[in-house]
This record gives sequence, structure tokens and C-alpha cells, in this order.
Amino acid sequence: MDIYERSLQLHKDLRGKYEMRSLIEIKDKDALSVAYTPGVAQPCREIAKDSENAYLYTRKWNTVAVVSDGSAVLGLGNIGGLAGLPVMEGKSILFREFAGIDSIPIVLSGQDEDDIVKTVEMIAPSFGGINLEDICAPKCFAVEKRLKEKLDIPVFHDDQHGTAIVVAAALFNALKLAGKEIEKVRVVICGAGSAGIAICKLLLECGAKNILMADKNGLVCEGESWLTPAQTEIAKRTNREKKRGVLKDAIKGADVFIGVSAPRQLTGEMVSQMAEKSVVFAMANPEPEIYPQDALEAGAFVVGTGRSDFPNQINNVLAFPGVFRGALDVRARDISEGMKVAAAHALANLVSDSLARDCIIPSPFDPRVAKAVANAVAEQAKKEGLARI
Amino acid sequence: MDIYERSLQLHKDLRGKYEMRSLIEIKDKDALSVAYTPGVAQPCREIAKDSENAYLYTRKWNTVAVVSDGSAVLGLGNIGGLAGLPVMEGKSILFREFAGIDSIPIVLSGQDEDDIVKTVEMIAPSFGGINLEDICAPKCFAVEKRLKEKLDIPVFHDDQHGTAIVVAAALFNALKLAGKEIEKVRVVICGAGSAGIAICKLLLECGAKNILMADKNGLVCEGESWLTPAQTEIAKRTNREKKRGVLKDAIKGADVFIGVSAPRQLTGEMVSQMAEKSVVFAMANPEPEIYPQDALEAGAFVVGTGRSDFPNQINNVLAFPGVFRGALDVRARDISEGMKVAAAHALANLVSDSLARDCIIPSPFDPRVAKAVANAVAEQAKKEGLARI
Repeated sequence: MDIYERSLQLHKDLRGKYEMRSLIEIKDKDALSVAYTPGVAQPCREIAKDSENAYLYTRKWNTVAVVSDGSAVLGLGNIGGLAGLPVMEGKSILFREFAGIDSIPIVLSGQDEDDIVKTVEMIAPSFGGINLEDICAPKCFAVEKRLKEKLDIPVFHDDQHGTAIVVAAALFNALKLAGKEIEKVRVVICGAGSAGIAICKLLLECGAKNILMADKNGLVCEGESWLTPAQTEIAKRTNREKKRGVLKDAIKGADVFIGVSAPRQLTGEMVSQMAEKSVVFAMANPEPEIYPQDALEAGAFVVGTGRSDFPNQINNVLAFPGVFRGALDVRARDISEGMKVAAAHALANLVSDSLARDCIIPSPFDPRVAKAVANAVAEQAKKEGLARI
Repeated sequence: MDIYERSLQLHKDLRGKYEMRSLIEIKDKDALSVAYTPGVAQPCREIAKDSENAYLYTRKWNTVAVVSDGSAVLGLGNIGGLAGLPVMEGKSILFREFAGIDSIPIVLSGQDEDDIVKTVEMIAPSFGGINLEDICAPKCFAVEKRLKEKLDIPVFHDDQHGTAIVVAAALFNALKLAGKEIEKVRVVICGAGSAGIAICKLLLECGAKNILMADKNGLVCEGESWLTPAQTEIAKRTNREKKRGVLKDAIKGADVFIGVSAPRQLTGEMVSQMAEKSVVFAMANPEPEIYPQDALEAGAFVVGTGRSDFPNQINNVLAFPGVFRGALDVRARDISEGMKVAAAHALANLVSDSLARDCIIPSPFDPRVAKAVANAVAEQAKKEGLARI
């Protein structure tokens, strides 16, 4: 059986990938009256007095909703919330397995921006954090921005920021090996959707000064008719010389290629025209922008992909469990750019002893990962005054 | 420590009464690629093809949301969704403990009727059923009605229907002992809120013909200025002779008193004026409309309360786990009046061998309860064409 047939069989056997477990055995009247009525009135009263007590007496402190409208699921596109449920259940169990978080998949019947914002706002009291997932661009930007303003719990669109954190971590180490500084390198990001733009923003936050973004229409440049509002905003922060053209032009002399686009966008010839000791992260899934072997043969110095069957897997499972673990641990009100940068540095540092061209990022199964990320995120939240405790 | 202090301590120790457990251990790349990407694309595709497949490949088949805006929590009143969360978590673990259902507490930040309806409609795809909880009247009627029309999964306001089912079951057995027929008895329901009205409707469905409802303003009678829309509707179906007055008038000669109102509404004198072999269900919590001893001394034949420390505890934990278990088992589109009546008969029948004045209803800890109710509900759903399988 191939991976798809095996997965379907597993899903059929299990009928869902999680279960809810009671922490109290209700075996007699006494248990009922302590766990439920009349005793339960007391924690209710305490929370009514001070809403922060919800973190003491309910599961809010450890619970994250994985919310999706199913408008951009994996490579499947807009299949709707219900059809995306297996992905959201998968995400939920990764939160559990990697960071001990109780995570609840919430898939939506509607895809309207206002409806999504209102719904998440309405259900937020049950949760200590909201992980937005597989919501299409540009809607995902607006949904996240509006929810971050409205809610006093962290809201995090993993497709954007999870990917960005892991890319930043991998890039720190790749540049270390290449002996280059992030402030000085020229970066080309191929794919100006939600992940590409989030990567760009985080690298700017990390000190990068010279980034060009390319989309299927060409270089993201102020004034181009096809730009979305998010692309216009990022154009102002990146392509100040207003370069027009396509990927092929931008890649010449670039130090770093970051692909979150489509298969086979990068040729060996393009790689050969990059700067010395070039870095190529080709993360299109399942087929990368260029296969590692081809990139290396064309002269790339460090190569990463999104796949587990090649070295240097840039996988956002390295980030989101620890990011939320850290945010929950200090009851953070938000996840800031600084917290994301801290997460990236923590990830990068985990391989400092074993750093090599084929080892720039830890394995998702390295048991230190979530804890290291969580500690860094929690510390940074405290520094920025975003921690409640 | 009293029950409230013990409950607070338990909640503090546990920090929430449930946890989410993964059914798959994610210990290596293979597990990740079967449970999550890329394999998970396959169940997604199958659900995109046919939404019914969500019942095969996700946890939807076994998952019930416990939704509350916290506008009428226990005896605490309108404390809001967040402060009601300990109750909703409690309800969720009862679903789990009594019927093996994965139940998720969802407490809301807003209390507007339209917002509640929209929110539940939006999150419904994740769930196989919706249990509405502790929403105040008359909003609860409108919310439930509108959601039943919109959704193709069961929507059930337990404060109304759970209570009604258990009252009906207890009444069947009490009347059996008294040698009376439901079609012929005169019933007075004290408390014309959501529970009282639901009890009234279900008893009408069960064949009762002579019911009067009393509220704190007096008898529910068409034309009274203080009636809510729901009370006006029920007035037309009950008080056809348009009797005005108060409880004291209505109770004279009545066969059955059903109290879902407030402490000490019923006096021994009133009970003594009821018909021979009268039935008194005094379910105000924690202090009943009349204490059992007082009712019995005044001549009542069968007495029940909502309390676990007296015989004949009329507790809705007898109903809701089995009702949802049965509805989920056949993927019911709705929970109909017929399904509720079937649940009541199944409950009543469980004590047919031990039927006595102090044993008209099974114990919540009788292990046969949920299964018997579930079977009856599932069978009835099939008969009415409400079952998907």
C-alpha cells in the first residue's frame, strides 16, 4: 500500500485520531456532586469574581483550538472545513504528542472573513490559544490581524509563522556555515503567498536588509497591477529599487533562495548563477522547487526541503508545539515577532554542536525541541510584558 | 471541608477536568507521514467527495459540543460563558463517563441570539451533535429552534429536554403505582421557564390532556400580560378553559405536582388538597419546593426530588448521555419528540422489576441506563427516518 492508502486505512480503523478523556472517574454520588453539581458552583463563582481564575480551575490553561475554514488545505486547495478535518485532527495530535497541549480541531461551515473572526471571538473563552490553519491568502492576514486585536490570548497562523520560524532557524545556521551575515546577504523568496510573506517579514525582523520576492506573475514590485494588499505592503519593505522581472533575473548573484511555491521553479542553471556558498531551501510539497541532488550539483552550498526523506527538513512541526507551549506556560496575551525570533534562535542553537551542511536544523523527533522553543518563547514574552504570569 | 470547598480544591488540583489524548503515537517520520502530511490528504479527498465520509475518517461520529453562553448557569444566574466553563467541563466528562462520548466544552464570549446561532452553525462540522446548556429563557427556545432547522446533526437543549425525559419516565412509573392513566390525570407544573415548558410539551406528547402551568406571576393563561411568546404558545395547548389564579388554586384536586421553580413553593396544606394517591416531584435545587418528608406526611403517594440524598432522584444525567449515544450511533439528523418519549419509556422500564414508591427511576449509576436509553433512541430514529445509518 502506498502512503495514501495506508493513511486512509489508519483513519478508517481509528475513526478519528483523538479522544477526550475524563480526569475524574464518576463512579458514585459523591464524585458527581464534587465534579458537577452542586460543588462545581464554587469554581464558577471564583471565575465570575476574576476571569484569570479560569486558568486555575479549568482546562483553558492548556487548550488550543485548531481553527480552519478549509479554504487552502495542504496541496488540495479549497475543499472546505469538513473535508479538512483529518488535517486539523492531525495538527491537534501533534500539539499533544510534541508539547502535551490539549488541542481541539474546529472546522468551520463558512468561509466569510467576518464570520470567521466573529466565530473565533465567540468561542475564544474556552481556549488558551488559537491556531489558525489552512486559511487562504489574503483572507488569512486579515483574520489573524483582526483576531490579534480583539483577543487577549495568542492567535497564530501556523502556515505563515510556523514556517517562517523554522526557515529563519535553518537560515541562521546555513549562513553560519557559509560565513555570511544575515544583514548582508541577498535573499530571493519564491512564492508571495501567506508563507512567503511571513518568512519575508520575519527575516526582516531578524536583520535581513536585501530581500526580493517573486511570484508567478514576476517580482513583487510596487505598482504592479497584480499585487494583493499584503504584497503591496511587503513590496515597500523589500524591493526599494523597484526591480521588475522574473525569478530568473532576481536569482543572479543571490546568496539565498527560499521556495514556498511550486515544483520545479528553480533550475540547476539558476543555482549556478547564484553567489558563492549559496543556500537553497526548496520547500514546495511534495515536489520541491529543485531536488537537493540537482541543487548541490549546480553548486549550492547548503540545501533544505520540506521533505523527511532528504537532509535538512524544514518542517513547521519544529515550531508550533513549542511556541504554543511557551505561550501557554506564561499565559501570554499574544505571540509577538520577538517571540518568533526567539523561537528561531532556540531551534538553531540546538544543533550548534553537530552543525554541518546536512545538519542545519534538528530532527522533529529530537526530544529537546519543544522544550527549548517553549523556554525561549516564554522568556521573550516576559521580557516584552506579554506574559500574565 | 464542605462540598464547595472540596470541589474548588479538586478543580485547583486538576486544573480542568478533561484532557485530549492522541490515538496515534507520533514517534517517527513514518507515523507523521501517515497521520499527517502527506498521507492525510487521502481521507480529506474522500470527505471532499462525500461529506458522509467524515463519519468514517474523523472523530465527528463520536463528538458532541457542550455550548453555553453562561446566561443561566445552575442557580448562579448570568455569570457569562467563561465563568460557566467548570459546569460545561463537568457536563463533558459526564458524556464521556456515562456514554463514551468525546465531548468538548465551548463557552461563548457573547450572548446575542443571532451570534450564538451563527457561531454554532459555523463550528458544527466538527461535531456529531450539539448540546446546548445553561442558556436563559426565552432565548434558549429560539436558539434551539433555529439551529434544529439549520443543522443536519442533533441539537438538544438539555436543561429543557433532559429534564423532561426523566420527569416523564418517573411519572410513567408513579402513575403505574397509583393505578392512574396519564390521559386522565390532572397535572400542575410550577415554574414556566424552559424546563417547565419542555416538561409540559413532552407530557402532552405522551398523552397528558390536563395540564396547568403556574409561574411566579400566576397561572399561565392566554391573555395575561406577562406571558412570554413561549408561554403564550403553551397556554393555548394547556389552559383551554382560561383559568386564572395562582398555584394554590390550581393544586386543589390535582393528581400530579411537578416543580421546577424555587424553594418552598409547595406547602403541606396544598399537598393535602391534592387528589388521592398524588405525585409530587419537587425539583428545585438545592432546596426543593417541598421536602419529601413534609410531602409524604401531608398525604403524597410518591415523591421525587432533584437531590441525590433522597429517594427518586430525577436527574437529567439519566437521559442526556444515552440520548446522544443513541443519536450518534445512527448518525441521527435530529432528536425528535418521539425519540425523547422512547428514551423516557426505556428509562421507566429499567425499574419495572423493582418498582416501588421509593424506586420509580433507576440510579444514575445503574450501568444499564445509557445503553437502554441509547438503544431506544436509535430505534426510534430509524422508525422516523431520522437515522442516516
